[in-house]
Amino acid sequence: MRSAEAIRVWRELLGLDRCRDDAAAVEQYARSMQPNAPAPCCVLYARSTEEVQEIVRVAARYETPLYPLSRGKNWGYGDACVLRAGAVILDLSRMDRVLEINRELAYAVIEPGVSQHQLYSTLQTQAPELWMDSTGAGYDASVVGNALDRGFGHTPYGDHSRTTCALEVVLADGSLLHTGFTHYPQARAGQVFPHGVGPSLNELFTQTNFGIVTRLTLWLSPKPEAFACFYLLAEREDALVPVVDALRPLRLQGVLNSAVHVGNDLRILSSQRGYPWAQTGGRTPLPSAVREQLRLEAGLGAWNLTGSLSGTPEHVRGAAARVRRALSPLGKLVFVDDRKLQLATKAVRLLQRFGAAKTLARKLEALVPNYGLLKGIPTNEPLRGVYWRLRQPPPVPSEDPLETPAGLYWISPVLPMQGALAKHVMGLITPIFETHGFEVPVTFTLLNERSMVAVFNILYDKTVDGETSRAAACYDASMEALMKEGYVPYRVGPRGMPKLVADDTFWTLARRLKQTFDPAGIIAPGRYIPS
Amino acid sequence: MRSAEAIRVWRELLGLDRCRDDAAAVEQYARSMQPNAPAPCCVLYARSTEEVQEIVRVAARYETPLYPLSRGKNWGYGDACVLRAGAVILDLSRMDRVLEINRELAYAVIEPGVSQHQLYSTLQTQAPELWMDSTGAGYDASVVGNALDRGFGHTPYGDHSRTTCALEVVLADGSLLHTGFTHYPQARAGQVFPHGVGPSLNELFTQTNFGIVTRLTLWLSPKPEAFACFYLLAEREDALVPVVDALRPLRLQGVLNSAVHVGNDLRILSSQRGYPWAQTGGRTPLPSAVREQLRLEAGLGAWNLTGSLSGTPEHVRGAAARVRRALSPLGKLVFVDDRKLQLATKAVRLLQRFGAAKTLARKLEALVPNYGLLKGIPTNEPLRGVYWRLRQPPPVPSEDPLETPAGLYWISPVLPMQGALAKHVMGLITPIFETHGFEVPVTFTLLNERSMVAVFNILYDKTVDGETSRAAACYDASMEALMKEGYVPYRVGPRGMPKLVADDTFWTLARRLKQTFDPAGIIAPGRYIPS
Repeated sequence: MRSAEAIRVWRELLGLDRCRDDAAAVEQYARSMQPNAPAPCCVLYARSTEEVQEIVRVAARYETPLYPLSRGKNWGYGDACVLRAGAVILDLSRMDRVLEINRELAYAVIEPGVSQHQLYSTLQTQAPELWMDSTGAGYDASVVGNALDRGFGHTPYGDHSRTTCALEVVLADGSLLHTGFTHYPQARAGQVFPHGVGPSLNELFTQTNFGIVTRLTLWLSPKPEAFACFYLLAEREDALVPVVDALRPLRLQGVLNSAVHVGNDLRILSSQRGYPWAQTGGRTPLPSAVREQLRLEAGLGAWNLTGSLSGTPEHVRGAAARVRRALSPLGKLVFVDDRKLQLATKAVRLLQRFGAAKTLARKLEALVPNYGLLKGIPTNEPLRGVYWRLRQPPPVPSEDPLETPAGLYWISPVLPMQGALAKHVMGLITPIFETHGFEVPVTFTLLNERSMVAVFNILYDKTVDGETSRAAACYDASMEALMKEGYVPYRVGPRGMPKLVADDTFWTLARRLKQTFDPAGIIAPGRYIPS
Repeated sequence: MRSAEAIRVWRELLGLDRCRDDAAAVEQYARSMQPNAPAPCCVLYARSTEEVQEIVRVAARYETPLYPLSRGKNWGYGDACVLRAGAVILDLSRMDRVLEINRELAYAVIEPGVSQHQLYSTLQTQAPELWMDSTGAGYDASVVGNALDRGFGHTPYGDHSRTTCALEVVLADGSLLHTGFTHYPQARAGQVFPHGVGPSLNELFTQTNFGIVTRLTLWLSPKPEAFACFYLLAEREDALVPVVDALRPLRLQGVLNSAVHVGNDLRILSSQRGYPWAQTGGRTPLPSAVREQLRLEAGLGAWNLTGSLSGTPEHVRGAAARVRRALSPLGKLVFVDDRKLQLATKAVRLLQRFGAAKTLARKLEALVPNYGLLKGIPTNEPLRGVYWRLRQPPPVPSEDPLETPAGLYWISPVLPMQGALAKHVMGLITPIFETHGFEVPVTFTLLNERSMVAVFNILYDKTVDGETSRAAACYDASMEALMKEGYVPYRVGPRGMPKLVADDTFWTLARRLKQTFDPAGIIAPGRYIPS
């Protein structure tokens, strides 16, 4: 009943078109790639920080929880959904200003509605010498939202929690917090030094529900003098162990200074094509003989590594030599740079005129977006994997998975960068997935000098009888096995959150912090921290 | 009265020799390089985390505040002193175990009592292929304590808040918090991935009083394949502007990936010799003619830059070429590597046998510790500057400034890495220092890709009439001017803390967080956060 009163006040504040409780609006936000997504009771669209403050004050007055979204493209981790039925969504996608680009100090000040694509195009016109770092979340994902969930990108600026600062945060009482030095209005170094003096609060607003971030500063990297990327195809499944062990010293030594992806054949195949229903006679999970055949046809390895080198030409040359020495015994290693890519594109185009080079063209098509991502250019390519298991895949790959019956859980445990552990995790997960009728698309990504994340994909078709519940059961069993063995995920969706909570000092403190920031539980109750 | 009861219980717990309220113990901790340091009423020495928990529980029971110290070598920022008379010191220097060194993943797990020198020697014997990062705080300073105050070092791992994780923290109720993944007892990636999942709490324990850190993980860097350092002597004072503007793109591009120091003549002179009392006839501040003469005699520039390059030999070569191109127009540039240094040392030794090369020998002597620091080797050299203004300097430089009448305030504003701002800050501070009778020893250090810190030294002699109060007045006036112009310090001592606090949302929240962590104000009340 109190939420009805709140909605009345919000409607006065925002107008009918920005305070919507009609069926169309509500249903749009009830769609998810995961089952049983609760529907909100109302959706609010804010256009400014002041409006967010006013909205929060009303929420507090009428004790009506708000679920803030930057752009709601949290694919596979809860999408744009609230955690509890009846909550009110606060959609910040219309706060989409790039407030400042500082070319000398290489940073941008942005609002939560700024998408990866928008920031990229803005930089292209206003500061083409600066690179952003993109995650695999696609064009439309919010840069701020992803950073707040500690998503990771693929350039040396890939750990966004370490390349963002100066948060502007609306707290649960409607007051406005500025982190680092920026709470001193006259401060000059607020955008360039993250900690400020005294308590350093930036990290408190990632993977929590302590406030609503309405602005932050994102550091950008100057386009390097030289750039090259490399691909390794390792044929044998057991190559994972030596590959990881070869990468570790390279990353620790700074020869590699960015994310490296090691994807298995299934992960790459799922982005390139649909499940081979005809070949398998509809059988799932994918039989190993068919898998091998698809792998060979696509020219893939059991493990497929992509990484990049950037810096001075001398550095790139020296690093390439070391990468070559370490990785070429483990598979087929290819280096690509801008010049090579241009030449290859030209050659393929030429050959295509004669009807030739189809496989090459397909390979090149797969290569280009991936190559771009290593330079921070956003792409929708990695998202395409979600259609893999659809019985009736969309004729043209949709840019919005929610318009299709695609189901997806991501499971993303972190592990020390050690080959034996990568193998151990594979050994834990594979039988669980297969028992539940799923093959195992996975990528291992280096997160920093010492750790990596394995991102497992449970891909399913919501229209297939029983598959939704099998996917959920597979998720639960996988999480249980991983947690038991100490492979804790770096990020989870709604189904994962309760599984993380233990009866320990950490979670007791987390609850008390929530009490301090938001005693009435107005902001995203249940997000990571149980209420 | 209640503290007397607490002391009785602590004495039972720790014994007489680890719970001391005798005059000798109390006086030892009342010494400071700054005036009016309050004396503690008692000093406790803990030997284990369990003891710290027990000590805190007793403190809570008897409402007696504790002031924890790692090793108490917080020179110029409050030394080992409590903030309020009558507080109890909890000295953790006897918790000095290096609990683990992981050579494969390049980290160490250490207790707060581990000194820079101890960690360095431990690594020398157990893992000589790993470098630690040292700050200028000297052999005896705690690695943990310095990191918790956000001190900075000189290698690529210089920002310790970004190379430490997995904190073990005793909270004010005696409970034990583990940050990141480490609160899951079985977690495997706790030492290698800082955030964990859900709230990331590491940064909450730097520059606050929210808990007592009893253990942390410190990342170490593998010895690089190649290493070189470079020195630039820029003769003219106005070279500061082009020097900073030349460094910025090099640092942003990753050509330089570690701290670079730019010290003025006075900062270097103060480490090498005492104030020229005879030449000046006792006059202060240093007359510019004498300053120029000393500078020439010592072969210094108005600005003296030291930096290092590390990585593959190719990277170092390429980076050196770019440094040469950018910096050699601005002064005399010299590169030094291990081979050159060995040769020079040999040559000087040879010449010395013939009574020659005195100046060279002195220069080399000054160079070596500095060169080591760039490789993470601790040194007491930078501390020597504190004796500059003593009328009667110790005959042999003391390793403990508190045994001398040396007075010191450090003022360390952060600024964006821009030459014009460096000049602006110099212009603000110089007249204030000179009006108060002090010359301006200063270093500018690059903190990250975009910011730098200016560390100004107020060096004085506590035995000289009026100098102590002039130093304090100089500190106050400098802080006021800097804060007004938006140059906020990255770190302060007791005199600076109240100057940072404003009536804003940030500080209100900081106070509420303190309430949450420590409602009774047991841990270091007044440290950064006002009670």
